[in-house]
Amino acid sequence: MRKICIVSHGHLASGIKSAIGILTGKADSVEAIDAYVDDSDFTSRIEKFIDSVGPKDEAVIFTDIYGGSVFQKVILAQPERKGIFHVTGTNLAAVIQCLLSADPLTPKVIDELIAESARYLQRVPPVEPEHEKSVGEEGDFFS
Amino acid sequence: MRKICIVSHGHLASGIKSAIGILTGKADSVEAIDAYVDDSDFTSRIEKFIDSVGPKDEAVIFTDIYGGSVFQKVILAQPERKGIFHVTGTNLAAVIQCLLSADPLTPKVIDELIAESARYLQRVPPVEPEHEKSVGEEGDFFS
Repeated sequence: MRKICIVSHGHLASGIKSAIGILTGKADSVEAIDAYVDDSDFTSRIEKFIDSVGPKDEAVIFTDIYGGSVFQKVILAQPERKGIFHVTGTNLAAVIQCLLSADPLTPKVIDELIAESARYLQRVPPVEPEHEKSVGEEGDFFS
Repeated sequence: MRKICIVSHGHLASGIKSAIGILTGKADSVEAIDAYVDDSDFTSRIEKFIDSVGPKDEAVIFTDIYGGSVFQKVILAQPERKGIFHVTGTNLAAVIQCLLSADPLTPKVIDELIAESARYLQRVPPVEPEHEKSVGEEGDFFS
């Protein structure tokens, strides 16, 4: 079974989960841990997720930002002792790719999925009027 | 004035806003538009944000995933007519970088901030026991 957990400052984790629900219908496959939104102990929820992963499961924990306190809590929980991957700096594409990939989640596969997701973090260039014209009037393209 | 707007499927936009509040205290500088969470018209909120940007403002609209319906709504709203940048595939670091950067937001500056944010989307390698040993017993390092 593939298990996905997202841990974040604030409601970012549950926000990603809700976007996944709308885009894929698979929100139930994702556990969201929103840290620092109340006084509850989110570290124990990370531990509980790690403990829930069995030897035949594939699992990834996503954290929101490299080096942040949530990131550090996950490092200290040593997810690798259960073969769980840790991906940080996450965007929505990275979680969806890892959730839906048909390939078994090896380090190489995850690195490829993440590299692809990182390429989609980009500035969208404005549509150039010149380009619109050349698309709309193909005869002009080679003139 | 620097204006930041995040538009997403589900509650991802308000989730990023809440994480920014915890990490920087600047949630008030961010407008979050959560799409498809109810029947309200989020397109008009995008338009309203674009209309609010004056000639002396710097503004960025972030969308959650490349090619998604939210992405397409922002493209159709033509933010470039007000000099507003559009960044997609966003992660938390990208928004924080654009929010806090001391540099004026030119295409080059944004591309650099985004490239840096994309580098932080990564698999975190597990701590190797061998590494721990070599750090703990420095005398062995060159032996």
